[in-house]
Amino acid sequence: MTTRNDDPTTGSLSTLSTLSEKECRELLGTTTVGHIAFVDRDGQQLIPANFAVLDGVIYLRTAPGSILSQLASGHPDVAFGINHHDVFRTGWNVTVRGTAVGVEDRATINVVLGHKRLRPWAGGVRPLIIRVTPSSMAGRRVSGNTA
Amino acid sequence: MTTRNDDPTTGSLSTLSTLSEKECRELLGTTTVGHIAFVDRDGQQLIPANFAVLDGVIYLRTAPGSILSQLASGHPDVAFGINHHDVFRTGWNVTVRGTAVGVEDRATINVVLGHKRLRPWAGGVRPLIIRVTPSSMAGRRVSGNTA
Repeated sequence: MTTRNDDPTTGSLSTLSTLSEKECRELLGTTTVGHIAFVDRDGQQLIPANFAVLDGVIYLRTAPGSILSQLASGHPDVAFGINHHDVFRTGWNVTVRGTAVGVEDRATINVVLGHKRLRPWAGGVRPLIIRVTPSSMAGRRVSGNTA
Repeated sequence: MTTRNDDPTTGSLSTLSTLSEKECRELLGTTTVGHIAFVDRDGQQLIPANFAVLDGVIYLRTAPGSILSQLASGHPDVAFGINHHDVFRTGWNVTVRGTAVGVEDRATINVVLGHKRLRPWAGGVRPLIIRVTPSSMAGRRVSGNTA
């Protein structure tokens, strides 16, 4: 669905498109860094994370003892997001909502660790793998706002 | 603080720097799109938002009836994030934690609406202004991971 959104108060002109789930999944394959939101006992967390998607499931790689590592014991309500925007005021974002839990199956861990997308940007030894299983996915694209 | 983070399991090499609050504030001035995380009665939300910083306070502009507009009635625990990363595996992120509430003071609304950074990417008429007052700020920069 694409709609024009012109703002008479600012003169801005833009096109806003809602992305299909297929488009969201395709965009999840184009980047390796996202951010995950969840509440722990310290409150609202929002943390960047290196990730890969395998068979429709999002895998994050982290280090034991990190804030992210808390998710290994399971969390019923997380949101994972990716986004892109450029100086031409064009951009897109995808947000996945779902549950998170640590991966204990050794075969899955090996497949995930072998995935080149999960080479962590932040470096370091990060052997802990968190699985985010999507319950919903939404995204949108904004373009043409050059007024 | 800068640390080397080399991962013997992947061969990745990188430098991870913790950003000072001053650096975080400077980076908040370099972009106009972030994302805000908060919990509402539907659970964890993670929503992109156009923003500007004035006098150390983050102002988001949204439309009445949007998910973001719920914050107008006040929220004690939100996290607002910005990030940048490129194909050279270099990037940074800043996360601000704090409280959110709608702005009712007309003079402040006019200043915020007049700020060129708050010209919304998604267009449309968005007269509702949400103030995020930071209680803490953290960020990091990752660079040189080209192995």
